[in-house]
Amino acid sequence: MPLDANSIRRLLEQVSSGKLSPDDAVEKLRHLPFEDLGFAKVDHHRDLRTGMPEVVFSPGKTPAQVAEIFKRLAKHAPNVLATRASQEQFSAVRKIVRGARFEEGARAIVLRRDRKVYGKGKISVISAGTSDIPVAEEAALTADLMGNTVERIYDVGVAGIHRLLAHRRAISQSRVAIVCAGMEGALPSVVGGLVGVPVIAVPTSVGYGAAFQGMAALLGMMNSCASNVSVVNIDNGFGAGYVASLINRL
Amino acid sequence: MPLDANSIRRLLEQVSSGKLSPDDAVEKLRHLPFEDLGFAKVDHHRDLRTGMPEVVFSPGKTPAQVAEIFKRLAKHAPNVLATRASQEQFSAVRKIVRGARFEEGARAIVLRRDRKVYGKGKISVISAGTSDIPVAEEAALTADLMGNTVERIYDVGVAGIHRLLAHRRAISQSRVAIVCAGMEGALPSVVGGLVGVPVIAVPTSVGYGAAFQGMAALLGMMNSCASNVSVVNIDNGFGAGYVASLINRL
Amino acid sequence: MPLDANSIRRLLEQVSSGKLSPDDAVEKLRHLPFEDLGFAKVDHHRDLRTGMPEVVFSPGKTPAQVAEIFKRLAKHAPNVLATRASQEQFSAVRKIVRGARFEEGARAIVLRRDRKVYGKGKISVISAGTSDIPVAEEAALTADLMGNTVERIYDVGVAGIHRLLAHRRAISQSRVAIVCAGMEGALPSVVGGLVGVPVIAVPTSVGYGAAFQGMAALLGMMNSCASNVSVVNIDNGFGAGYVASLINRL
Amino acid sequence: MPLDANSIRRLLEQVSSGKLSPDDAVEKLRHLPFEDLGFAKVDHHRDLRTGMPEVVFSPGKTPAQVAEIFKRLAKHAPNVLATRASQEQFSAVRKIVRGARFEEGARAIVLRRDRKVYGKGKISVISAGTSDIPVAEEAALTADLMGNTVERIYDVGVAGIHRLLAHRRAISQSRVAIVCAGMEGALPSVVGGLVGVPVIAVPTSVGYGAAFQGMAALLGMMNSCASNVSVVNIDNGFGAGYVASLINRL
Amino acid sequence: MPLDANSIRRLLEQVSSGKLSPDDAVEKLRHLPFEDLGFAKVDHHRDLRTGMPEVVFSPGKTPAQVAEIFKRLAKHAPNVLATRASQEQFSAVRKIVRGARFEEGARAIVLRRDRKVYGKGKISVISAGTSDIPVAEEAALTADLMGNTVERIYDVGVAGIHRLLAHRRAISQSRVAIVCAGMEGALPSVVGGLVGVPVIAVPTSVGYGAAFQGMAALLGMMNSCASNVSVVNIDNGFGAGYVASLINRL
Amino acid sequence: MPLDANSIRRLLEQVSSGKLSPDDAVEKLRHLPFEDLGFAKVDHHRDLRTGMPEVVFSPGKTPAQVAEIFKRLAKHAPNVLATRASQEQFSAVRKIVRGARFEEGARAIVLRRDRKVYGKGKISVISAGTSDIPVAEEAALTADLMGNTVERIYDVGVAGIHRLLAHRRAISQSRVAIVCAGMEGALPSVVGGLVGVPVIAVPTSVGYGAAFQGMAALLGMMNSCASNVSVVNIDNGFGAGYVASLINRL
Amino acid sequence: MPLDANSIRRLLEQVSSGKLSPDDAVEKLRHLPFEDLGFAKVDHHRDLRTGMPEVVFSPGKTPAQVAEIFKRLAKHAPNVLATRASQEQFSAVRKIVRGARFEEGARAIVLRRDRKVYGKGKISVISAGTSDIPVAEEAALTADLMGNTVERIYDVGVAGIHRLLAHRRAISQSRVAIVCAGMEGALPSVVGGLVGVPVIAVPTSVGYGAAFQGMAALLGMMNSCASNVSVVNIDNGFGAGYVASLINRL
Amino acid sequence: MPLDANSIRRLLEQVSSGKLSPDDAVEKLRHLPFEDLGFAKVDHHRDLRTGMPEVVFSPGKTPAQVAEIFKRLAKHAPNVLATRASQEQFSAVRKIVRGARFEEGARAIVLRRDRKVYGKGKISVISAGTSDIPVAEEAALTADLMGNTVERIYDVGVAGIHRLLAHRRAISQSRVAIVCAGMEGALPSVVGGLVGVPVIAVPTSVGYGAAFQGMAALLGMMNSCASNVSVVNIDNGFGAGYVASLINRL
Repeated sequence: MPLDANSIRRLLEQVSSGKLSPDDAVEKLRHLPFEDLGFAKVDHHRDLRTGMPEVVFSPGKTPAQVAEIFKRLAKHAPNVLATRASQEQFSAVRKIVRGARFEEGARAIVLRRDRKVYGKGKISVISAGTSDIPVAEEAALTADLMGNTVERIYDVGVAGIHRLLAHRRAISQSRVAIVCAGMEGALPSVVGGLVGVPVIAVPTSVGYGAAFQGMAALLGMMNSCASNVSVVNIDNGFGAGYVASLINRL
Repeated sequence: MPLDANSIRRLLEQVSSGKLSPDDAVEKLRHLPFEDLGFAKVDHHRDLRTGMPEVVFSPGKTPAQVAEIFKRLAKHAPNVLATRASQEQFSAVRKIVRGARFEEGARAIVLRRDRKVYGKGKISVISAGTSDIPVAEEAALTADLMGNTVERIYDVGVAGIHRLLAHRRAISQSRVAIVCAGMEGALPSVVGGLVGVPVIAVPTSVGYGAAFQGMAALLGMMNSCASNVSVVNIDNGFGAGYVASLINRL
Repeated sequence: MPLDANSIRRLLEQVSSGKLSPDDAVEKLRHLPFEDLGFAKVDHHRDLRTGMPEVVFSPGKTPAQVAEIFKRLAKHAPNVLATRASQEQFSAVRKIVRGARFEEGARAIVLRRDRKVYGKGKISVISAGTSDIPVAEEAALTADLMGNTVERIYDVGVAGIHRLLAHRRAISQSRVAIVCAGMEGALPSVVGGLVGVPVIAVPTSVGYGAAFQGMAALLGMMNSCASNVSVVNIDNGFGAGYVASLINRL
Repeated sequence: MPLDANSIRRLLEQVSSGKLSPDDAVEKLRHLPFEDLGFAKVDHHRDLRTGMPEVVFSPGKTPAQVAEIFKRLAKHAPNVLATRASQEQFSAVRKIVRGARFEEGARAIVLRRDRKVYGKGKISVISAGTSDIPVAEEAALTADLMGNTVERIYDVGVAGIHRLLAHRRAISQSRVAIVCAGMEGALPSVVGGLVGVPVIAVPTSVGYGAAFQGMAALLGMMNSCASNVSVVNIDNGFGAGYVASLINRL
Repeated sequence: MPLDANSIRRLLEQVSSGKLSPDDAVEKLRHLPFEDLGFAKVDHHRDLRTGMPEVVFSPGKTPAQVAEIFKRLAKHAPNVLATRASQEQFSAVRKIVRGARFEEGARAIVLRRDRKVYGKGKISVISAGTSDIPVAEEAALTADLMGNTVERIYDVGVAGIHRLLAHRRAISQSRVAIVCAGMEGALPSVVGGLVGVPVIAVPTSVGYGAAFQGMAALLGMMNSCASNVSVVNIDNGFGAGYVASLINRL
Repeated sequence: MPLDANSIRRLLEQVSSGKLSPDDAVEKLRHLPFEDLGFAKVDHHRDLRTGMPEVVFSPGKTPAQVAEIFKRLAKHAPNVLATRASQEQFSAVRKIVRGARFEEGARAIVLRRDRKVYGKGKISVISAGTSDIPVAEEAALTADLMGNTVERIYDVGVAGIHRLLAHRRAISQSRVAIVCAGMEGALPSVVGGLVGVPVIAVPTSVGYGAAFQGMAALLGMMNSCASNVSVVNIDNGFGAGYVASLINRL
Repeated sequence: MPLDANSIRRLLEQVSSGKLSPDDAVEKLRHLPFEDLGFAKVDHHRDLRTGMPEVVFSPGKTPAQVAEIFKRLAKHAPNVLATRASQEQFSAVRKIVRGARFEEGARAIVLRRDRKVYGKGKISVISAGTSDIPVAEEAALTADLMGNTVERIYDVGVAGIHRLLAHRRAISQSRVAIVCAGMEGALPSVVGGLVGVPVIAVPTSVGYGAAFQGMAALLGMMNSCASNVSVVNIDNGFGAGYVASLINRL
Repeated sequence: MPLDANSIRRLLEQVSSGKLSPDDAVEKLRHLPFEDLGFAKVDHHRDLRTGMPEVVFSPGKTPAQVAEIFKRLAKHAPNVLATRASQEQFSAVRKIVRGARFEEGARAIVLRRDRKVYGKGKISVISAGTSDIPVAEEAALTADLMGNTVERIYDVGVAGIHRLLAHRRAISQSRVAIVCAGMEGALPSVVGGLVGVPVIAVPTSVGYGAAFQGMAALLGMMNSCASNVSVVNIDNGFGAGYVASLINRL
């Protein structure tokens, strides 16, 4: 017997009309598999989700597919983000979604209609080298779209530690820091040691040879000697921006 | 507001007494997070679970811990199985669980009180070498405890293919075959090609050097050129016996 | 001395004519290497194979090669399947095999002439994300071609567990479930815990970075905490559909 | 010329007495390598560090070494934590540090003198299986020592999803969740999908065979399909507790 | 219908007595699964196997088990070899097998009763370092037991190339060379370049750190720039000795 | 002082003329680094090398480069082989080397002027699947060019063991067998168990997913349970043909 | 309060004018975060850096980007190097940087205006095979640009050890040797054993199959049995040239 | 004809006595395999080797074996070093080698009779954490034994960058720096960026979980963004000390 809101209503009408005692009704409900209680699927995160963009991961999708998904998402959310998008995919989106913009640095298509600030403080987005910037920009853009003040601190890799030190104050004044690095992935440890805020580390696939497309950086970050570091997937700027945004709303 | 069976009953009583209309009750229910509907946690597999043993994985547990868990499980299920157990763990179990037995070949402690046959046919348990037998015995014992007829065919590795061929008929007459092999893990492919029944492959950690504790066998089995092979974890005789038992009940 | 059917016949004629005693004939046969008994190559699975499609793996083959193989197979089997095929390969097949169809979702070329139902129940094919659908479709199509009723349940990944829960009843009513997932590959464990039927897990190469082309999902599935899960190769929708079909015929 | 506070003072005295012009003094300072400015080594995190325990990682150290380090740390910090400690190491500590306690579940030695609450909300610590509890307890104890309210939710692995669902409300009411899981490491993804709070995932070395001492769980968590998940090292309960505490103070 | 030698005899008697025509008998035989022709299991390698020792792999077996297996093998073969054996295992063997000897250098128990020379030339066994000698000795002992003249050339690693060059003549006068090396495993390439004979390379688990228990050596040998090199498993001295012996008998 | 044949001659002339005593000359020679004795660089393998082709590995070279190298080698050796060559590379070769031929199956360019038979017996070249044939053909062509009789036995993978068994006699009559297999790489073990000749195993990169470009096959072959198997690099048909040819000349 | 040279000057002026006592000034300075002392960022390596080229890593950059960076670097340094550059990238550079040259062998764009010799001796650059030459050339070019005398010794792989031995004297007369090798990466060990100078080993990605893009060579070199070998990243000819140049200046 | 010094002398005597012309003698010499010229094995590095200690790697050797080897080496070299030695091994050495000392910090047995300084400057030995000190001490001790001035700078890991900065001057004043670090292995990059001297990086096996016994540190160091870093094997303090000593003698 399929069970849905109508079934429940009928059962309650039987109770109301005295055809069914409350105890019998409880018993009947007790044996129903809960997942058929379709109406119970409340959106758990309603409040938390306010201001969250809808997101589409673009690689492997045709421009038409990206555009179609983007348009559909734009109906439900004020802000929409298509990550790792190409200029071609943007061309398709632009034709059917008014207001969509291409962020070249972050390789992303963006629709931004809600510009409210939800984050309570600043998020620092730090990159080791210039090649890590696209990942850092994806993180920064995500945090930006989710209503955060973002400070970008780029090209401060560990082989020139003074460049980083010059930014210690700025980083320690943010509520959470995102650190993107490829190759040996050492920057999050150094940042984590310099400041006391939570650090979200993003290994990037920058490097060659024994960098193994980011695996060396990922392993380095997992083994960080700084205790305030946690890690997301290789090149996952979006995930880092998302986690940092959640933290900055607390 | 915490919600449980009592809450539901009270709500239904309000409906029954006319204090709440059915529509309002539906609306109230609609917004309750379902997981608080504690009474809805029915046991989904009631029928399928009949005859399933309760199981404890023994490594890393003290004899006292194994004994205590074993005893508790023995209250709810007629058959109990402690896998990868030691003689010491058994000594502790035996003192407090009447009827527990040690199966040395399978390195397991067993309590068997339900001896009904649930499987519709025979399960073949095949091992490549003599070193694979403990894993094969764990599979065979699991299938046995779950009410299956089991035929053991051991030491029929691919380097002596005639030993295996002599058993082709027996294997093809079973409804499902479990094949345990370490080293290069080639036996499931050969068995899979010989017979048309589903083959559950179990890589074992038998071997040395480039066997990498079963990784070579696991990779070999994942790449089987026979289409009727699926694979469980290294040394997971219990899992193979369990899956095979489910299949044999169909 | 090469031995074939003619040799055997001659030997039997000697027995028939009294030139050779039965005992001597037995002795002669005893020392012949059996593989020369060419006529003994019976097809072992005649019955089991009924309804099985012939299959060709298309990657790396030219359109002409696929077409030629497809045509040859179509002479021996009513149903033929070319997996991971391109539109170009299909164009070549269509010209020489009447009735061949291209299944875009499953990236497969299909010839279906035997539409008999061989499976005793339903096979659920479940996918975690939309990107896993091509693999799931390959599994579903394989099961369909092999005479099974298939129920597709797509886009029910673990990050939105309610979508999956809404389908628990449907899955538990199938005789076997195929679960396709990339990235962390967690879905088979959750499905395996929800229902009591055998689960065939298919890791997909969906994901990036530390997904390592499906290796993360494969390892996750091998370590499933649900006991009713076994695993096939990365992206091997065909294998999963084949194993499930064998199980569903039991 | 070694430069320290005294040197600076002398330089300033020369300025004060008119022997050195301010411009010349600036010039002199300009060419000093900054790291010799020893007095500049301020403690950057003074405020953030309040309530942070001092920590010692016990494995590989003799009981005497652990005791000595523990005693020294106890002089500077009100709370001290020795992780992964043995009963023997505790015996040595107890003799020379008054008030030290052994937390068997977390395998840790603890000295707690500052019991102030620094966290603004609750931290949930969740474990998949009972074998993951020592890691979870290390996380919980760390968070507790750092002045947080901790709610433990154990043994809610994905193969029995209803056990987890029953705790959804509790988890979503915490400000941050720590999720410990071995084997396939799927729990963080499911938790991450259920609630909107930041999730710190801890892969554990629980499992065998293809679990590869936690590598399978780590890879699974890195590839989580839930966007609010970040990951720390295998078995690193301390790191997770530390990061969560930092977040909970924001 | 089970079919064995008796069944065949009965069938032949029917032919003999005229009850069955030769053609009908052929037809009947044609449809029998050949593996039931138990009598056809001739030993294929009878000739080649002459002089081959029977072998038992000792690790993981109790002294009693090794002794029992050794004794049983000693009944069928003049020469028996237990590899990777301990002194304890030898003590057990010695009590029940007369003439068994312990070869400490090769960590092997040996029974040698057939001392005939089967090999046509000399086999060189070469080791890179002194730590590789146990593996080299296992290879040398195996070749020796199989009736070959063996020349040992030890401690001629590539970092002191002159030591090796001094033996070039000796190596090039052998019919096959076995080369054992751990660490970077470079020796087989150098030997392969110096002489024109087939080289069997044995990676050993000698080394530490990035040697990964022989994996570095194995990979090095697989990639040898010398074309006359083939490779066996890590530490597999027995396999190398066996392959070389087969080659030396040609 | 650079030392060469002229220097030696001058030294000897001094001895001849009595200007230098033999003892002093010995002393002088004793301290010369031998590598300067340029005239000592005899070709060690003169005899063994007779009939060996010169070889060029084509990938990554321009057609012009392949042609130039091929032409140069053709001046010194009667037989020349360019492996893994393209049609384009062959077009360039053909223009400047008379008699060069393209072997499409083996993807090789061949110049054959010495057709003498050097091998004493037959070499079997066996492939598991049709996709392994290019590698097998490279092996067969190499052996053929080096003056061996080659028997090709293709498409006899372990999932259809009867196809292989039908060739047991042929294989056991060869002096050495080359076995090429991808995916799980099980065929060498089965062949090794069937026959007593040395088996050279060639893992191929055939397969997908967990085949890892031949790594699964390589590991399987390294762990072969048959003692007569040694292994060359993934797809290294040339190496296998070369080793087998050396063995067949013994 | 932002602090810079001006702030310091003002503070010193207060001291000078008697408004601030030296002790108070020390106290004020003590609490300033040092990284704001911008003037302290002296260039540490001023002397050592003389003659060092500025470098750009070209892959993944557009011709325009390479040209722009190259031009900017050319303003600050007499010598500029763009590694792994293409002809297209050079065409763009040539248009805007007078004097830039393309070194085809090293795949590099070079601007050389400082031709002073800084190295005290010779650097040997050695390659195993011809395919390793581009990496060796990158190392040689780097060393050359940094003012060193370079001796190239190419194609002296270990499979033809005599070619290498003929160069022993030359290598031992250099102050440092760079050794580039792919496949098994054995050459650095042999060179390290032949000469007593520091050896910088460069694994190259030359090879196929189990070479794993240089990983086999890297592991081999890490495990070198010669004690004078250290290793840089796969294909990192630039790094090797740089390290060797630093050593040669000592 | 075996050829040695005597043969050469006889040949020269024939020249001297006029029985053989110089030209014929040259011709005779030309065809002798050079490796038989035993007298040519001069010690190439005589000068460089002065002051080098003889070394024995102790693990896996019995105390008696270590003692015996140590004693033998002590006959040929003034300084002897046994690395990774135990107290037990030292006890055995001390009994038979007068003057041997145990260096507990470096886990080494040392005999030092030559105390001359061979290095031209200072070698810095730097460690990230206290757990890395045994490896650092092995490096320092090696350099010390080889006649270098060593400056130890310990416990200056990247998570507390100020501790390291305080030592910048000291490090930049050394001629070569050795940097030992486990976990993420980030320290060599930071040191490499701070100073212009050659840096020898030593990954240590310190860490747990995803540290993989030093593999994470090794990969990190291979990918160092500082160009003056080269790497030795995991825990290879001896190798680092040896390479640094060679450099410091230049």
